[in-house]
Amino acid sequence: MDNLPPPISQLRLRLDGDALQNNYRALAKASGSAQTGAAVKANGYGLGVHQVVKLLDAAGCREFFVAHWKEALEISQLVDPARISVLCGVADADMPLALALGAVPMLNTPQQIKRWKMGGGGRCHIMFDSGINRLGIGAEQLDASLFEELDIDILASHLASADEDSPQNAAQLGVFTAAISVITARRRSLANSAGIMLGGDYHFDLTRPGLSLYGGIARPELADIIQQVAYIQSNILQIREHAAGDKIGYNATYICDRDMRIATCSLGYADGYLRGFSNIGMAHHNGAALPIIGRVSMDLITLDIQNAPHLSEGDWIDIDYDLTKSSHKSGLSQYELLTGLGNRFDRHWA
Amino acid sequence: MDNLPPPISQLRLRLDGDALQNNYRALAKASGSAQTGAAVKANGYGLGVHQVVKLLDAAGCREFFVAHWKEALEISQLVDPARISVLCGVADADMPLALALGAVPMLNTPQQIKRWKMGGGGRCHIMFDSGINRLGIGAEQLDASLFEELDIDILASHLASADEDSPQNAAQLGVFTAAISVITARRRSLANSAGIMLGGDYHFDLTRPGLSLYGGIARPELADIIQQVAYIQSNILQIREHAAGDKIGYNATYICDRDMRIATCSLGYADGYLRGFSNIGMAHHNGAALPIIGRVSMDLITLDIQNAPHLSEGDWIDIDYDLTKSSHKSGLSQYELLTGLGNRFDRHWA
Repeated sequence: MDNLPPPISQLRLRLDGDALQNNYRALAKASGSAQTGAAVKANGYGLGVHQVVKLLDAAGCREFFVAHWKEALEISQLVDPARISVLCGVADADMPLALALGAVPMLNTPQQIKRWKMGGGGRCHIMFDSGINRLGIGAEQLDASLFEELDIDILASHLASADEDSPQNAAQLGVFTAAISVITARRRSLANSAGIMLGGDYHFDLTRPGLSLYGGIARPELADIIQQVAYIQSNILQIREHAAGDKIGYNATYICDRDMRIATCSLGYADGYLRGFSNIGMAHHNGAALPIIGRVSMDLITLDIQNAPHLSEGDWIDIDYDLTKSSHKSGLSQYELLTGLGNRFDRHWA
Repeated sequence: MDNLPPPISQLRLRLDGDALQNNYRALAKASGSAQTGAAVKANGYGLGVHQVVKLLDAAGCREFFVAHWKEALEISQLVDPARISVLCGVADADMPLALALGAVPMLNTPQQIKRWKMGGGGRCHIMFDSGINRLGIGAEQLDASLFEELDIDILASHLASADEDSPQNAAQLGVFTAAISVITARRRSLANSAGIMLGGDYHFDLTRPGLSLYGGIARPELADIIQQVAYIQSNILQIREHAAGDKIGYNATYICDRDMRIATCSLGYADGYLRGFSNIGMAHHNGAALPIIGRVSMDLITLDIQNAPHLSEGDWIDIDYDLTKSSHKSGLSQYELLTGLGNRFDRHWA
């Protein structure tokens, strides 16, 4: 069984490495004199963290942020672990790996800080919660003695509403600025992708984009400088002629209003293309529009291919996956559209 | 770097192997004298296909259905490949692996049938499309000569609306029954999980449940015999006291209406717990209800823990994941709630 031919996937994620690197450079430029790191958690926002990290490293990125120690371990052969930050901090169970690996915890709570000190941890980062009220030391917990004897590299905070023109942004900026005088760190960091576009006051020493590296438009101002990275391609398994009145797919949510030529393609909600695209998603082939009709199945979609009469079984079609438009259509956030991309795609970087 | 301690996950999928096997036995019993196979595509509906196949095999399952050849390969060390059926059929590119592996294609189109004959394929299955109009030989394509020289084991079809009391069910039954006289096969199969509950007329020789094996209630009648299999558990990373008026999470979708004690836990939409659970999902700890407040983040959720004052960082909480209720709450289908479960969980079978 060891010499079996490799399986050929019927669905592809075509990934534009140049676009990823261009997005990084655009966000770095927009970050002015601040350094620019990258959030690569959740498997590089679904795209495949190994290639994401290699490409961002080559583009000049020096700080990589993951959520979990498992994620830090996965990329620790690719970049110096000292450049990997772990956003969940350290639980007791994490300490052995944290100390051995040398990735840097983002300490979020007084307990985590005490644990890190007691465990003999070295360099660390501190997450200060300036108002998202999710993770980090709160303003009410600010006590200079808490931070004594800590080797703090990055003092970070996270914006809750940077994608909106909300007074919460300036409020968080003020709270963070006040904390800087209490917590002594070598570098300070506040802005995510959207936060970068709020202006220089938000940049501090280091920005930490995520979504927009991968093609997401976190604020309208980013639409001009950010390129799509992930493109879905799906193989045609079957083409059939249907008569007016035929019911298509689960629960007959589409009924043919004329004689139709319909292609069934390999892609479904198990691949992250959720049922919100039923009867509303779109695909293309050489410029011809191919509307998705009927309900998205676990592994399959059905398309009206009237506009591309020469298609045949085995041809590849392009699924529209502009993140802004797809988000409006499907009801999923741009983030979910990326992180939901499943394991059955062949990921092709070019 | 080879002797690093293993990473400890902050999120768990507790999987009840007894429930999976009991669900199989319940569906087999409901299938009467028909054999009962299992759809194990999409990584065993998200739960982890290796353990799913082992447990179902031990419970007596003899037919396993996957969508792709890659999925057949993944389980080919666990069960005789002759008992694995590949629903997408065979494309040209699949033929080398298909012939070498010995898993059995579900042939869906005249082209696939010709390809299989020309390539010297042996035993096969045929998908006949009785009205879902998605994948399979259509009634208009029925020509006895197409099936000559084929060694057909299973003649299958798939129900579009078995989860509803729809006249489409009886219509499909009639179309399938008519096709049986044209396509000679050793076994016939029509019913998925919901179809099993439509009665003995739908059982034929083999049923092919999927969703309900994994705890999904495909029809109300299944609620009495199907048990939950997948339970989400999440670790508390942080507990903080918040004041009335504090805004919680992204875009401040929750504002504290009193002084509150809030836990931030490791689980997010990148794990398949999508934003539809924001401000509406629920967790429990030893019977105490812990409502999810604020927006679900990529890696984090926030909970009101007023009802469990003794919780502390590092404790595990149980996320409500009854599939019927969670589907109503989140707007996702029960299927999507399963197949979306991500790679960051530690999957614990017991």
